Amino acid sequence: MTNRDIVTLAGGVGAAKFLRGLIEVHDPDQCAAIVNVADDFRLHGLHISPDLDTVTYTLSDQVNPETGWGRVGESWSVLAELERLGGESWFSLGDKDIALHMFRTQRIAKGASLTEVTKEIATAFDIAVEIMPVTNDPLETKLTLTDGGEIDFQDYFVARQHDVAVSAVRFEGANEAAPAPGVIAAIDDATTIVIAPSNPIVSIGPLLAVDGVKQRLIDNRDRVVAISPIVGGKALKGPADRLLRELGHEASVTGIANIYADIAATLVIDNVDEHHRNAVEAAGLRCIVTDTIMSDVSRSAAITRSLLEAMS
Amino acid sequence: MTNRDIVTLAGGVGAAKFLRGLIEVHDPDQCAAIVNVADDFRLHGLHISPDLDTVTYTLSDQVNPETGWGRVGESWSVLAELERLGGESWFSLGDKDIALHMFRTQRIAKGASLTEVTKEIATAFDIAVEIMPVTNDPLETKLTLTDGGEIDFQDYFVARQHDVAVSAVRFEGANEAAPAPGVIAAIDDATTIVIAPSNPIVSIGPLLAVDGVKQRLIDNRDRVVAISPIVGGKALKGPADRLLRELGHEASVTGIANIYADIAATLVIDNVDEHHRNAVEAAGLRCIVTDTIMSDVSRSAAITRSLLEAMS
Repeated sequence: MTNRDIVTLAGGVGAAKFLRGLIEVHDPDQCAAIVNVADDFRLHGLHISPDLDTVTYTLSDQVNPETGWGRVGESWSVLAELERLGGESWFSLGDKDIALHMFRTQRIAKGASLTEVTKEIATAFDIAVEIMPVTNDPLETKLTLTDGGEIDFQDYFVARQHDVAVSAVRFEGANEAAPAPGVIAAIDDATTIVIAPSNPIVSIGPLLAVDGVKQRLIDNRDRVVAISPIVGGKALKGPADRLLRELGHEASVTGIANIYADIAATLVIDNVDEHHRNAVEAAGLRCIVTDTIMSDVSRSAAITRSLLEAMS
Repeated sequence: MTNRDIVTLAGGVGAAKFLRGLIEVHDPDQCAAIVNVADDFRLHGLHISPDLDTVTYTLSDQVNPETGWGRVGESWSVLAELERLGGESWFSLGDKDIALHMFRTQRIAKGASLTEVTKEIATAFDIAVEIMPVTNDPLETKLTLTDGGEIDFQDYFVARQHDVAVSAVRFEGANEAAPAPGVIAAIDDATTIVIAPSNPIVSIGPLLAVDGVKQRLIDNRDRVVAISPIVGGKALKGPADRLLRELGHEASVTGIANIYADIAATLVIDNVDEHHRNAVEAAGLRCIVTDTIMSDVSRSAAITRSLLEAMS
């Protein structure tokens, strides 16, 4: 289960698109993904793991291409009835998606770890990439609002559509969260460690908060390459740019370089950010400039080609 | 919420059919049902209350007429995907049914009692009958197998299709289970208390095991009428006849009379059991003989008419 060439630290949609391109150019059996679970939550009794599921659906070509999350060809019978009953419907759950959450919840109730269930799900979706939750312990992203109060990630991200100012982010449980089986070995054994173009604060941040993960990246810094989720000063999706600014970082590839400087030796930036090359290098990172817009699988795959060529 | 004329002690399908007939001849606003929850269980993370749901679906004409449980016009998208994933599919769950379980589970997770959720569901289904769980406390039917071992109710009833010999039945939690709000008052205030044609051991038994319920029936015995779930020595549905024999009772209306003699003054039996009238009366119960086969709503309603006429 270890000794995979390329291990990717992954959040949701951006990471999933990168991984889908990766397996076009590299043997999926030689790829692993360590996935954020600090967005996981329980709703309607179900254990929902949004990032794991987005990676699963994308790698199996089951993802809804319109949204980048959820399943293609999905039906909505359950949610329609739930709405009729006056139930909470702020988090979109399609019928097949619900089945997956029910499966996960029941397996965990029967004693399986999230690591084990995730393997079972990958098998059911015929996915060769090893998908691993970063931890099997409780880990929850909490955001402090500038206006006061602390909220859960899904409240921030989905219910409020990240349209609120944030003054701090923490990961509840981080002090006790141990890396899940396989995680540390996957980092140690990989030839290349990729930090996917995910939100550095709320997607990659929780991975780094799990005991030992950040230190292993520091120790293996030469083999770590990050892909900037910021292009032209903006997040391709989600609130990364706003969140970076609110937390005192620069919302640019230079800001990303500064955040990752101690754990990554290389940063992949988009062609439009070429003028930041000197600043990235000044931050101590080698800079790969290429097209990073993953509008389809072939463009995602092209990033991997550039990245592997530069790292070889 | 109290002061209803007729309160019915109810299990699942048989009770639901009786209640559906009852509201044809009596104002639903004047009817209450105290429902068994010892069959409730958690599967896939969902809080499932089979008897409450069967009563709800039947009273709202949403029940599947083929089975007597589950919903008519149901779709099965979730279960199909759950099966594909290798999940547990021994308990049939349609999409709309799952939505109801998700609603209940989430409301309880947010702090609502089962009593409160059940009211909300009744409102959503436009049901005027007051449907009450007998208790909001844990109460679980456990069956000891003759071959050894103890199993849960749904394992017995659904997974094994009640095709096993049982040597004992107990209700875990009964010593601590308090009656839910409204239950005792409903019994005390009713003009007529009906014990529905449900399994006396595993459907009515748990109701009687909740603190105070049996004593209230004893105290109000003259106003209690039971409808025999045994017709011609057989259960109309389910394992009541076999279970009665295995636990040392007679699988006949006389056996039912003996079981209910201390809590009910009247027993309704089917025409085919007319020859048991003397035995029922010898057990100390008044005997109403009528057609008790509830093959449609009008025949269910006819039982109520006979019963109310005899009790008036």
